[in-house]
Amino acid sequence: MTAVLSGTELARNLRAEVTAAAAALTGAGTSARLAVVVATDDESSAWYVRSIAGAARKTGIDCDVVDLGPQAKPGQIRAALAALSEDPAVHGIMLQTPLPDGAHFEDLASAIAPEKDVDGANPLSLGRLSAGLPAFAPATAAAVLALLDHYDVPLAGRTAVVVGRSNVVGKPAAQLLLQRDATVAVCHRHTKDLAALTRPADVLVVAVGQPGLIKAEHVGPDAIVVDVGTNPTADGGLVGDVDERAVSGRAGGLTPVPGGVGPVTTALLLRQTIQSAAGRFP
Amino acid sequence: MTAVLSGTELARNLRAEVTAAAAALTGAGTSARLAVVVATDDESSAWYVRSIAGAARKTGIDCDVVDLGPQAKPGQIRAALAALSEDPAVHGIMLQTPLPDGAHFEDLASAIAPEKDVDGANPLSLGRLSAGLPAFAPATAAAVLALLDHYDVPLAGRTAVVVGRSNVVGKPAAQLLLQRDATVAVCHRHTKDLAALTRPADVLVVAVGQPGLIKAEHVGPDAIVVDVGTNPTADGGLVGDVDERAVSGRAGGLTPVPGGVGPVTTALLLRQTIQSAAGRFP
Repeated sequence: MTAVLSGTELARNLRAEVTAAAAALTGAGTSARLAVVVATDDESSAWYVRSIAGAARKTGIDCDVVDLGPQAKPGQIRAALAALSEDPAVHGIMLQTPLPDGAHFEDLASAIAPEKDVDGANPLSLGRLSAGLPAFAPATAAAVLALLDHYDVPLAGRTAVVVGRSNVVGKPAAQLLLQRDATVAVCHRHTKDLAALTRPADVLVVAVGQPGLIKAEHVGPDAIVVDVGTNPTADGGLVGDVDERAVSGRAGGLTPVPGGVGPVTTALLLRQTIQSAAGRFP
Repeated sequence: MTAVLSGTELARNLRAEVTAAAAALTGAGTSARLAVVVATDDESSAWYVRSIAGAARKTGIDCDVVDLGPQAKPGQIRAALAALSEDPAVHGIMLQTPLPDGAHFEDLASAIAPEKDVDGANPLSLGRLSAGLPAFAPATAAAVLALLDHYDVPLAGRTAVVVGRSNVVGKPAAQLLLQRDATVAVCHRHTKDLAALTRPADVLVVAVGQPGLIKAEHVGPDAIVVDVGTNPTADGGLVGDVDERAVSGRAGGLTPVPGGVGPVTTALLLRQTIQSAAGRFP
């Protein structure tokens, strides 16, 4: 029997915590504010930004969308991030993807002040995280760990395999798992026999963006599988990277898509914004 | 037959390259200068610093040892690193370990200007490295990759296992191997069945500091083994983390200790200093 590791309850708890903290801050005269810098007219990006802005407002966090348009030059994006970093009314800064051609995400994200880098995009945040120094983790990677903790999944001494090596999910998730004393392997598209590497995993984290990539053969009995993929379907829905039907009955637990990592990610982004507004750098 | 993957020839080539570049810089009016900040009276540290200073001078690089003494406070160490970062006559800065109680290596190393961080100690360097942005890698981790390249060891699609997760070797070596499209696993003292994890490795990098840790059972046939360990022996010699006798005949290749990673590390530290002096940030 494969347990459904829903993110709904955890996200609700986190949002309640954020709402209370935002109210306390407002009472003390500070309006927590998140700024999202956008330089694309991509539809799914716009949808995601609207959902973050909506969630922020519901918890009492102001959200400014700074739309520079799809023609924005890297210098303009960098200047906007630097200005927001200097602005004392802004507590969290997010740089939305995709970016215009010629703009390099991590290079631009270097302009985000680390204490406002609530989505852990500045390479300094990743470096500090790896070195065990205080830093905001990318919200998605943090959500993977938060879900594992929510379901009391042991990590120390266990084998964790991360499929995907992006700077926003795969690499930071691997660092966070390593910090928790898991033995960690990172696989990617050059990995030759993926199933041979993923099958021994006690914890399998999949963040590739390829629907149905992970099938029964990739999953060991009782493995805990965290599906970070969010792939749009033809009928307007979302599916993850894990073939849910194939894996069900074999894995010990699986996070659903939608309703798994996604809502926890948004809630953690807001919590990191509140931490920043309260001057509580992790 | 296990090939001995000596670092001697590669180190000699690198030193020749550095010597020529240092002479060219001197001809152009710049004396390349490396500063090593020391806050310990540890004997083996003093030996290491003397060997770096000697190697630097032989290639035409000035080396200043800034000895703050074992009683130095973190604030003093940070101030010294910041002053050297500002000093236009200094091109490379290294913070030697061990540090006094209460001093945190990565925290202090944050004060080293990234363009002078020739031993990749600043967490920003590690973050930039992970993100694929230009940065100096820790010289030891860079030496692992340089040796593998020197012996034409293929990495893309191969399985690399790193034993040890230090910020100066294990983690950055794993990042560099990942960048080269290897599938990478990181093991450490919490790893339960180490041999089961290391045996499938095409490339095994060991950086733990435990003599004889890696025996025949840990090594698959034809694996390339890079031994980063440097453990002093009772008779004043050095041994690595790999039981050389047990592994010989089984591994495809093994770097010796001494004479493997060590000399390449020193040579790369000097090369990174010359790159910095020449304004060629990687």
